[in-house]
This record gives sequence, C-alpha cells and structure tokens, in this order.
Amino acid sequence: MTQPSEINLLAAPHVRSLHAYTPGLQPKESGWVKLNTNENPYPPSPRVAEAITRELGGALRLYPDPLSSAVRRAFAQLHGLAENQVIVGNGSDDVLNLLVRAFAGGAGRGVAYAMPSYSLYPVLVAIENGATVEVPFTREMTLPVEALARSEASLLLLTSPNAPTGVGFRTAELEKLAQAFRGILVIDEAYADFAEENAMALVSRYPRVVVTRTLSKSHGLAGLRVGFAAGRPEVIDLLDRVRDSYNVNRLSQAGAIAALGDTGYLADVVARIKRTRAAAEAGFRARGWFTYPSQTNFLFTEPRTADGRTGPDVAKACYEHLLAQKVLVRYFGSHALTRNFLRITVGTNAEMEALSRAIESWPLTA
Amino acid sequence: MTQPSEINLLAAPHVRSLHAYTPGLQPKESGWVKLNTNENPYPPSPRVAEAITRELGGALRLYPDPLSSAVRRAFAQLHGLAENQVIVGNGSDDVLNLLVRAFAGGAGRGVAYAMPSYSLYPVLVAIENGATVEVPFTREMTLPVEALARSEASLLLLTSPNAPTGVGFRTAELEKLAQAFRGILVIDEAYADFAEENAMALVSRYPRVVVTRTLSKSHGLAGLRVGFAAGRPEVIDLLDRVRDSYNVNRLSQAGAIAALGDTGYLADVVARIKRTRAAAEAGFRARGWFTYPSQTNFLFTEPRTADGRTGPDVAKACYEHLLAQKVLVRYFGSHALTRNFLRITVGTNAEMEALSRAIESWPLTA
Repeated sequence: MTQPSEINLLAAPHVRSLHAYTPGLQPKESGWVKLNTNENPYPPSPRVAEAITRELGGALRLYPDPLSSAVRRAFAQLHGLAENQVIVGNGSDDVLNLLVRAFAGGAGRGVAYAMPSYSLYPVLVAIENGATVEVPFTREMTLPVEALARSEASLLLLTSPNAPTGVGFRTAELEKLAQAFRGILVIDEAYADFAEENAMALVSRYPRVVVTRTLSKSHGLAGLRVGFAAGRPEVIDLLDRVRDSYNVNRLSQAGAIAALGDTGYLADVVARIKRTRAAAEAGFRARGWFTYPSQTNFLFTEPRTADGRTGPDVAKACYEHLLAQKVLVRYFGSHALTRNFLRITVGTNAEMEALSRAIESWPLTA
Repeated sequence: MTQPSEINLLAAPHVRSLHAYTPGLQPKESGWVKLNTNENPYPPSPRVAEAITRELGGALRLYPDPLSSAVRRAFAQLHGLAENQVIVGNGSDDVLNLLVRAFAGGAGRGVAYAMPSYSLYPVLVAIENGATVEVPFTREMTLPVEALARSEASLLLLTSPNAPTGVGFRTAELEKLAQAFRGILVIDEAYADFAEENAMALVSRYPRVVVTRTLSKSHGLAGLRVGFAAGRPEVIDLLDRVRDSYNVNRLSQAGAIAALGDTGYLADVVARIKRTRAAAEAGFRARGWFTYPSQTNFLFTEPRTADGRTGPDVAKACYEHLLAQKVLVRYFGSHALTRNFLRITVGTNAEMEALSRAIESWPLTA
C-alpha cells in the first residue's frame, strides 16, 4: 500500500506545506447570537427568492450563462461602467483568487497587502506559490500610501474599509496610492455600502485600479456566493482566461440580478445597520473600550477590565466568556495589532442587547 | 494612460498567452433543439426544488457550510465511502481544477491525458502553467494502458466513459492502469450513470485512484454546479488546501442532498435516456453512419453523404445544415480523430425525431 508520504510527493512542493484558510465558525445548532462572520442580520430582498423560484423549473437542467452576462450588465449599469469592465465570481473570494492567479507571477515583487487586513490574501498567494510583501499598519490605522507604493508588487490587495478594523480610507488617499503604485491596485470594497465614500470612480480614471464588491454583506446573501470585480477591459479579459467557465450557477445569477435591482431595500437595510452600529459603538466607548470608528457592519473593540487592563489575555478571556454565553464573535490572536481586540458583527438591536448583557455578566467587567 | 501592453506585463507570463476554454453555445432564444452540451432533457427530481425552496428564507444571509459536510456524507453513503474520502466542488470542473492545482507540479512529468478526451483538461493545466503529456487514442478507442502508464505524469486525467466518443472502458482495464501508473489517476466519471460499469470500487483498493462525478448530466442539474471527487483521505486533504473555502453555495448544497437521495428518479431518467439512445444509435447505423457504441448520454457519429463520402467537410456541412434548422450539436474540428464526427446529446424522443427530420432534409443525405 502506498504510504501517505508517497501521495504527498505527487503534490506540488508548495501545496504540501499549505494550510487551508480558517473561516469563522458556522455553528449548526440554533440558540447562538452569531456575530462572528459579518453576515447581515436581515434577510435579503424578497425579490431574490422570487427570482430564484422562477429558475427552479426545468431551467436547472441547463448550464448557466458562462459569462454571467446579464449580471455583469446589471452591475455595470449600477456603477456607470460598461459590461466588459465587470467580471462576476462565485463570491468575491473567487474574484480575488482570479486576481492572484493572473497577477501574482507578473512583473514585480509578488503580491502586497497591508497588515492587518483580510486574512484570506496570504492564503490565496500561498496556493499560487507566489511571493508576498507585507506592509504594516500602525495602531492609528492610517493608510501607508508610500510604503505600499514602494512595495513594487505586481498586485496590491487592499481591504477598504479595512477588516478587521472597520476603518475607512478617504478616496483622496486611495487616489494618491493609485497614482504612486505601478502594479494592479485591488480595492476590496466588501463593506463599501456601509462606508461614507467608495472608490468605484477610480476604476474609470486609473487603468490599473480594480474594485471588488460582494453580495455577502450589505445584500444579505453570504449563502449565495456572488462577488464582482470592476476594472479595465484588458484586466477583466485576463481574469476571464483563468476563470472556471461556469463559475456562477443559475440560481446565483438570477438572485444577483434581483438583489442588485432592489436598491431601495438595500438602502433601508444599510441605514438600519448603521443606526445599530452607532449605538453599539457608543456603548463600547461608554464602557471605556477603545473602538475604531467603523465604516463597515462590524466593530473592532478592545475589551478593558474594571481595573483598566487591556491586552491579549483580556481580549481572549472576554471572547471565551461570550462564547460560554453563546455569543459568538471573532478573535484574531496572531497579530500584535489585532490580539487585544474583538471583531464583532453588527447584528439586530436585539442581538446587540444580548451581547451587552453577556458583557455585563463578564466577571472582569463588574 | 497605461497601454494594454503594460497591463499585460503585470500578468504572469503564461497567463498572457492563455486562451479561455470554449464551452458549447448556450442560445438565449427559445426554439432551438439543443443537443450540444450533454444536458439532461428531463428536469431534476422535484425534491431538488423543494429542498432549495426551504433554503430561500433567512438562511441565504448566512455563509454556507464551508466543508459541504452533509453533501460529503450523502455522497459517501451512496458509494460505501467515508466522509473524509469525498470533496464537493462547484461543478466537477472545480474539482478537476483543484486536482490540477494540487498535483500538476508534483514529482513526475506533469499532467497526462488521452486525446481526444474532455477538452477542459489542457486549459486547466495551462492556467496552472503545468506541463502536459498527450497520449493518443487510435480510431478503435481502446484504452492505451501502457502508453498512459509510461507517461510518468504526476497526474493522469481520464474521461471514462470517454468524451466526446462515448466509448466505455472496462473496469478490469482501468484496474490494470491503476496498477501500472505511478501518479494520481483521476477517472472522470461524469457519464458513469449511463454506463455498464464504473470504477468507484477502485478508490478503496488503490490509494492513488480518484474518481470524479457530477450532478450535471444524469441528475439534470448542470445549472446548479455540483461535482465530487472520491479518493484517499490524504488526497482529499490536499485538495481541501487549495479549495475556495465557500466553493459550494447553500442552494447547491441543499439541492445536491435532495438529488442524491432520489435514486428512484435517477434510475427512471437514466433508463429513459438509454432507451432513446439505443433507438438513435440504431438510426445512425441504419443511415450507414459509423457510430461508436455509447455508454454516455450522447452519440459520436460520422455523417456520410448519399454517395458514401465522410470527412471534415462532410461533418462540418452537416453541422451547418443542422444549425440552420435550429438543431444545435457539437463539432470538434481540431483533432484528426474527431473532425469527421458530430457529438450529439441524447434528448427526448421528440427532440431526436426533430434531429432525424433535420438530417433527412440535408441535401447531401438525399
């Protein structure tokens, strides 16, 4: 019988040492207050279910449109772009993967990203056996424009507003970066609908700027897996060459068009979440917890004990206490700028009250 | 303004010269007899729509199970495997892509496949910038066991029953190959439900054998994008490391479990298609058209003129005539063993009668 090590030798050397990305927990039992993966606490537009139901007859036996053309058009029209400036992915993770596959090995020093940001980026680069350039944030979380521009990377992945901090960047700052950086600048706007500004207009002004979006957050469709990239037709064409031909299924295409079309519903949901966010942010500050100003649907807050201590032990203890109360939040212990903090999704008002009660019951608070 | 060539320089060198895979046409207007992409002419089990409808409430706001665990279990139970011997993909194309990403760069001479077979294989290898070893079939289409074993590839992708020929291979032959080949042997069983035999049992007996399946053909779910690979846990673990964490959405997971569970419906649909296939196969032979014995849901047949001519011009002319009659079939003009032939999906009896009428009206037939 072949030993496992023989199978490993048949794998590409870099794959043998890969570790899979660790997504947030998805508990299967009910009873949890789930504030750990930045899902929307509200359901998607009812038009989504209607559109999907219409596809559930005989249409499922047929392959989807390989280009997702109608979805590209719907997204393009919303943002004043042409259809050939848009690609649709099986979630924005798919689109980010295509960007890494296309550009990680191009002229330049690999793939740059700021730390901390979306923890999937290094995983995608490692799968592609690419080189990474990590540019550190400071605790102030201002955009390190010059350091990023100096990275000389072929591809720069920037979460904006950032995760897990929730901090937004001014479009004027991003524009400076677009001018200074010589590679493909990807502005990953997963949370842009919750922000004061977004950088979509830069796509038409700067040929190397790509903006990515998702339906997973503001549109309440994490379960449907639909994401987008907007960029120059030449960039989109390169991404299409490394794309799986049928990457977005029929139901996702139908649901995406319906969701994109219901802009009124989106505005209502976003306004509700922003109101809850403001109250929760004020609540953390009232406790004396340092909390970054959020332009996303989550808050990044630094738990503090009654006697004024902060730090990894405090944050970890708070996480564990909340977990025991069946309130699930996210803790990133591996980075100096994140390990004193908890990332907490903005849920419904009722969920945020449950969170408050759970924090009140934390012995170190009292 | 940056010129397109500057953007191209930022892409990896091999990506600049890639050509995207060309899927079969998906006409958007109605009125076509669509026999070009091996879709099932019958709708999926009604349980699929029921299961998907149950997911259409608030659940869509939540991420799917990243491991598709319940789907892995359902597939494993059907085939007498353990859950950790199964991975689920966004279509079997996704699973094939994972296999290429994991193994194209392993110890060995790249990725081998027999020609002709599924035309996606070289596209996937090119995206990964891997080396290919093409092993030719002869017109007899018998499995070239020794030549494949001698390829010294790290990965061998074998369509069985084969496409676009429809020819099946005996499991005893595949077992000889499993014994002789030293790399990962992928038996791509997209069409296995229409065949006399399948090789799933080899997964438990040979540690380097992987069998892939799909819901796109026999289950009538090409629009849902669900595929599988079954192999040793060590192999599955390597594939999971290069997999997108949320590759299968909630609706696809729910629909897949329902489809896998309705084995009676599957058996009925497969029996119907096989009856239609037998009649169509007999019909082509009665016209004097050489037709490979099919173990799939399509027929590979060599059009012949009234005066006995065959060849690329004849096949192409027949294709064009059928197209003008709004009967869409597939023509592969780029290979000596395929360019005299048409690949024709087995549709409903009514569709096959429409095909017959269109052939009757071909001037070269009369």
